[in-house]
Amino acid sequence: MSRQSILEFSTPGRGTRNITDAVAKAVSDAAMQTGVVHVFVQHTSCSLTITENADPDVRRDLDTLLGRLAPDGDPAYRHDLEGPDDMASHARSVLTDTSLTIPIGGGRMLLGTWQGIYLWEHRTSPQRRRVVVTVLGA
Amino acid sequence: MSRQSILEFSTPGRGTRNITDAVAKAVSDAAMQTGVVHVFVQHTSCSLTITENADPDVRRDLDTLLGRLAPDGDPAYRHDLEGPDDMASHARSVLTDTSLTIPIGGGRMLLGTWQGIYLWEHRTSPQRRRVVVTVLGA
Amino acid sequence: MSRQSILEFSTPGRGTRNITDAVAKAVSDAAMQTGVVHVFVQHTSCSLTITENADPDVRRDLDTLLGRLAPDGDPAYRHDLEGPDDMASHARSVLTDTSLTIPIGGGRMLLGTWQGIYLWEHRTSPQRRRVVVTVLGA
Repeated sequence: MSRQSILEFSTPGRGTRNITDAVAKAVSDAAMQTGVVHVFVQHTSCSLTITENADPDVRRDLDTLLGRLAPDGDPAYRHDLEGPDDMASHARSVLTDTSLTIPIGGGRMLLGTWQGIYLWEHRTSPQRRRVVVTVLGA
Repeated sequence: MSRQSILEFSTPGRGTRNITDAVAKAVSDAAMQTGVVHVFVQHTSCSLTITENADPDVRRDLDTLLGRLAPDGDPAYRHDLEGPDDMASHARSVLTDTSLTIPIGGGRMLLGTWQGIYLWEHRTSPQRRRVVVTVLGA
Repeated sequence: MSRQSILEFSTPGRGTRNITDAVAKAVSDAAMQTGVVHVFVQHTSCSLTITENADPDVRRDLDTLLGRLAPDGDPAYRHDLEGPDDMASHARSVLTDTSLTIPIGGGRMLLGTWQGIYLWEHRTSPQRRRVVVTVLGA
């Protein structure tokens, strides 16, 4: 059995947004006891990640590190039509996740205590982002 | 319900190959309306990624960046039996994706407009690569 | 159809542990012919990866590279309450995988010859880790 919904989020520019509750609601609405939920962004310049949900410094530090691995405006980039964050955003997307899959048991996501689900905007300007949530199970 | 097929691809050496159409055909053949398609490479020196499908410079720039993060012939490598691209290829594989999962709705993949599915060869020599495609849904 | 189990592993500190056999047993117990197995760690400072299963130097080299991309005790980190490996572990988790999905065909995982499934501890101290295994298929 499968049930699907599409979520839309506004992002104010680069940074993470906790979408755990929105995904949890889709899981609850699907009313399945055991299975998985699949979360997918329909974009190549933002991404998804599961990381520590308590200290916002973790997400700030992750952003700092990604900025080193895929620097804005790197002179090696050939793809820079939309500005210095254009190619960097595609690279940040590839190094993190376009989709996540989380187990469902007892009708809810089996996340660990410290795990949160984040939509990670890599562009520096505000965007509208579409996320497809598919629940599979029984 | 699930349906599985195995695709084979030749790669001419390092670089990306768009396999979106081949995966779309497997989805179409499976004739499921809602669910997910799972794509898996049976190798540890190539990988899969979803990225921008319009400008080939994006994939070239991604390759440039991966070459920095996992350089060929790095003096720190102990595993180098098959040449300078051997260990680099395993590392590139780990930093990207061995498998992808894409939602299916209305009988087709719900990719965003700019998303393409790429098989990413990391070895510098030609290879034959096997990709297992599994469609789950109803 | 779906079947779920929870595995627990002790880790002696930073490094990889081959959990392929434990996942294969969960797949065998689920007695499904075709589908996928989803493996998920309920933690944000360890991860999962599929990589070469023959030469232990590959995993050592991967650890060396991750140590460069997300150095212990980096002066840029603001999150360091649990020591120099705290933030580095979260970053290593984000750059690798919190979950893996592997196809099942003929009742067993369709891994390539050289693919092994590894639990990758990023903390330098011993930990107890929970892994949720969900088999989906028929």
